Amino acid sequence: MTNETRTILLPVPERILGANDEIAAATRQELARRRIFAIDLIGAPGSGKTALLEATLRALVGHHRPAVLVGDLATRRDGDRLARWCDLVVQISTGQGCHLEAGQVRDALAKLDLEGVDLLFVENVGNLICPVGFDLGQNVKVGLFSLTEGDDKAAKHPYLVAEADLILLNKIDLAPHLTFDRAAFEADVRLLNPTVPILEVSATTGQGLDEWIAWTDRGAVAARGDAIS
Amino acid sequence: MTNETRTILLPVPERILGANDEIAAATRQELARRRIFAIDLIGAPGSGKTALLEATLRALVGHHRPAVLVGDLATRRDGDRLARWCDLVVQISTGQGCHLEAGQVRDALAKLDLEGVDLLFVENVGNLICPVGFDLGQNVKVGLFSLTEGDDKAAKHPYLVAEADLILLNKIDLAPHLTFDRAAFEADVRLLNPTVPILEVSATTGQGLDEWIAWTDRGAVAARGDAIS
Repeated sequence: MTNETRTILLPVPERILGANDEIAAATRQELARRRIFAIDLIGAPGSGKTALLEATLRALVGHHRPAVLVGDLATRRDGDRLARWCDLVVQISTGQGCHLEAGQVRDALAKLDLEGVDLLFVENVGNLICPVGFDLGQNVKVGLFSLTEGDDKAAKHPYLVAEADLILLNKIDLAPHLTFDRAAFEADVRLLNPTVPILEVSATTGQGLDEWIAWTDRGAVAARGDAIS
Repeated sequence: MTNETRTILLPVPERILGANDEIAAATRQELARRRIFAIDLIGAPGSGKTALLEATLRALVGHHRPAVLVGDLATRRDGDRLARWCDLVVQISTGQGCHLEAGQVRDALAKLDLEGVDLLFVENVGNLICPVGFDLGQNVKVGLFSLTEGDDKAAKHPYLVAEADLILLNKIDLAPHLTFDRAAFEADVRLLNPTVPILEVSATTGQGLDEWIAWTDRGAVAARGDAIS
């Protein structure tokens, strides 16, 4: 094999990222004022983001008042699925856009009555690359991988892994039918992010969801505390 | 659920796309002169692009002389895997880049001795969105989906489906363990691209690969014919 070809990337103009960051900062301030803990959920297409949120919303009923924003190029399918479990859902259609931007999140939030809301889930566009660079005003980024994608995906997506506050490894119910080296996956994660928690879950069977729910719960409690203190 | 939020996308500057298209056109001309049939393989992270190419290269030994370019943000893992089956492999590291561009393909091809080569596989960066908009000089685009991603992924990625010359549905060996409505998937494809062939394959078990190999073979024969006529 010949040597790697390294190329210079087309930079996103700084004024665009600057404008995005300004809007994100305002959103973050507003969410803090409202004591809302906001999670930016980033994963590949088909990694199970919507299935995870369906299971999560089901589990949160009666304990929290969540809102959900969900980004897709096209269709309202994810929004419709999530609206069965939550009355505060906005589907954001990005057209050809490969990620959500802060302005889209701000505009979507403006459509919701956030009174009493304590958790905000933002299901980003299915993409392990582009969403990472755009601050949305979230408190945390969660990187969702799934067993079916192969154990090399952390190493191949270092920017997401390095920035993630939590790594979820979904579809562990399929482990008997796949070759996936969990130790290798975890070792790759540790090289990039030595302290990030890794939780194994199955949105389908519910395995491991308790820990994930507890993690979101701690975030919501902390957001409440931050606002009070 | 509230109404959709439609937003204006940040356009890629026309001069950038224009420069990309100029390079792609030159590459296409050069590949035609050399009678090389070039396939741009586009699929999500973990859809099985590399596994498919491994199985494909194995099957082509003795019948064709292929070359492979493979794009990833980081690591040489895919290139190393493919180099076991082919001596003409270039790993292109895109850094934070979410797709391959024509200049990267041109530069990578310049590293290879293309004498006698009749097939070029370009494994694009794992991403169902950004690679679609960038012409690389290929003859055809192949959209690779996998059963584990869910049956809604064609509808959610209309630009790839509409532009694809072939749709591959990978990981059908896992069908017994998943709920995937193949009729619904195909119906979504048909709405966007009424005539595109859809081939079901398993890179792991080899199921359906004969048809895919035959499809590439017909392309290579046509490329040879075009050059002679």
